[in-house]
Amino acid sequence: MKKPLILVANDDGIVSKGIATLVKIMKQIGDVVVVAPDSPQSAMGHAITISKPIWLSKTSVFEGVTEYQCSGTPADCIKLAKSHVLKGKTPDLVVSGINHGSNTSISVLYSGTMSAAVEAALEGYPAIGFSLCDWSADADFAHTEEYILHLAKEVLKNGLPKGVCLNVNFPPISKEEIKGIKICRQAIANWEEKFDERKDPHGRSYFWMTGEFVNNDKGEDTDEWAIANNYVSVVPTQFDLTAHHAIAYLNSYTEIVKS
Amino acid sequence: MKKPLILVANDDGIVSKGIATLVKIMKQIGDVVVVAPDSPQSAMGHAITISKPIWLSKTSVFEGVTEYQCSGTPADCIKLAKSHVLKGKTPDLVVSGINHGSNTSISVLYSGTMSAAVEAALEGYPAIGFSLCDWSADADFAHTEEYILHLAKEVLKNGLPKGVCLNVNFPPISKEEIKGIKICRQAIANWEEKFDERKDPHGRSYFWMTGEFVNNDKGEDTDEWAIANNYVSVVPTQFDLTAHHAIAYLNSYTEIVKS
Repeated sequence: MKKPLILVANDDGIVSKGIATLVKIMKQIGDVVVVAPDSPQSAMGHAITISKPIWLSKTSVFEGVTEYQCSGTPADCIKLAKSHVLKGKTPDLVVSGINHGSNTSISVLYSGTMSAAVEAALEGYPAIGFSLCDWSADADFAHTEEYILHLAKEVLKNGLPKGVCLNVNFPPISKEEIKGIKICRQAIANWEEKFDERKDPHGRSYFWMTGEFVNNDKGEDTDEWAIANNYVSVVPTQFDLTAHHAIAYLNSYTEIVKS
Repeated sequence: MKKPLILVANDDGIVSKGIATLVKIMKQIGDVVVVAPDSPQSAMGHAITISKPIWLSKTSVFEGVTEYQCSGTPADCIKLAKSHVLKGKTPDLVVSGINHGSNTSISVLYSGTMSAAVEAALEGYPAIGFSLCDWSADADFAHTEEYILHLAKEVLKNGLPKGVCLNVNFPPISKEEIKGIKICRQAIANWEEKFDERKDPHGRSYFWMTGEFVNNDKGEDTDEWAIANNYVSVVPTQFDLTAHHAIAYLNSYTEIVKS
């Protein structure tokens, strides 16, 4: 039987433990093509590169896969994969990650990992973004493998609803502690930024962005709740940003359309 | 009566005709604070700057406003405005733009203009992103003024539903041709990228991203339809990316949660 074609991307760059783990898992079930950034691209959101050129070059970081590094963003990687690497072939699955760090809640907006998955969904490919809630470069991904394999097989078998990809986050715990998988909604929480102001040698102010994640969403159906309670969180994620519930509201409550 | 406090941002950079037009309009109704990128930041999506420092400096591009340029992204501008420019004051309205170019349909994902509006909505501020469907640096914004004033006043008066900002696009036509304002949904359409492959002087391939917008969404309730039919499109836009309709589906149709 023909093996499924699996495209792998990420945002931490082609040389990272997370993508190495993901490639190793995907090789068990498919023919793997990797197109990943040549340098870390965290927090790039859904940026694309239109004002400067993008470099794409073959690499040999892994064994037994077709692989490229790209100077662009995670979304660029998916676009270039479609246009110049896959050469007309349609991937059966696109996976992104495994991100070093959480992409729960509002972080989905800033996440390069998820922008690759969303971009793939835009192209109509079944897609999953995987993240481990541990930012360290040497994070332990051992407990993620069985779940990633399971989720990838499920999506290969059943597909996903149109316009939907999955945002999967793992708690940073041991395999034995994981209670299972929960389908969740994105917690309505936010980052409270703090900027560390410094002076450069020329006396000009500059700022380093830091922040604290503040979750006032007490729902037990959120990704944040799942992670805090030792579940793997799975949030179905879409790219239609229309607040459909607000359309009738705006039409009725204001004079907005009567100008 | 105290004038409303209005924060203005954009993605084309503080020196652009679009933001100059927007500042001029907002000065008619409020005390204006500008925090805008010091260089063009189109297609930055919801990128934020965490791996390098951000510069912020006072400028005197406009008259009678408090204004700063920032080396970061549009989302960074909102974060820095909150943390270091507004100094504890809450803006009554945040406006972003006027963008030189369309931000209808899926472009909302890639749009720096809309990322500033969405970031403001995340902070709980009423926010509107304005875009004119004309990419030229010298685009004619004359027909947008009356509608922008009207929409800004409406939002100042009535607020917006929680977690919702507005994505407003103008067709590139004369004032007389505009038929009015339509509340719309985001058209489900996509960019089909083309990459122009070239060789650098060292023989390495590089790519310029170009693309063609393809709209197969025939609905007459979309922003694309509105623009094509000479309406100003207003899409209520949210940052909850959860595909809520897919939660029950995923829970029922697969073995996904039973690992």
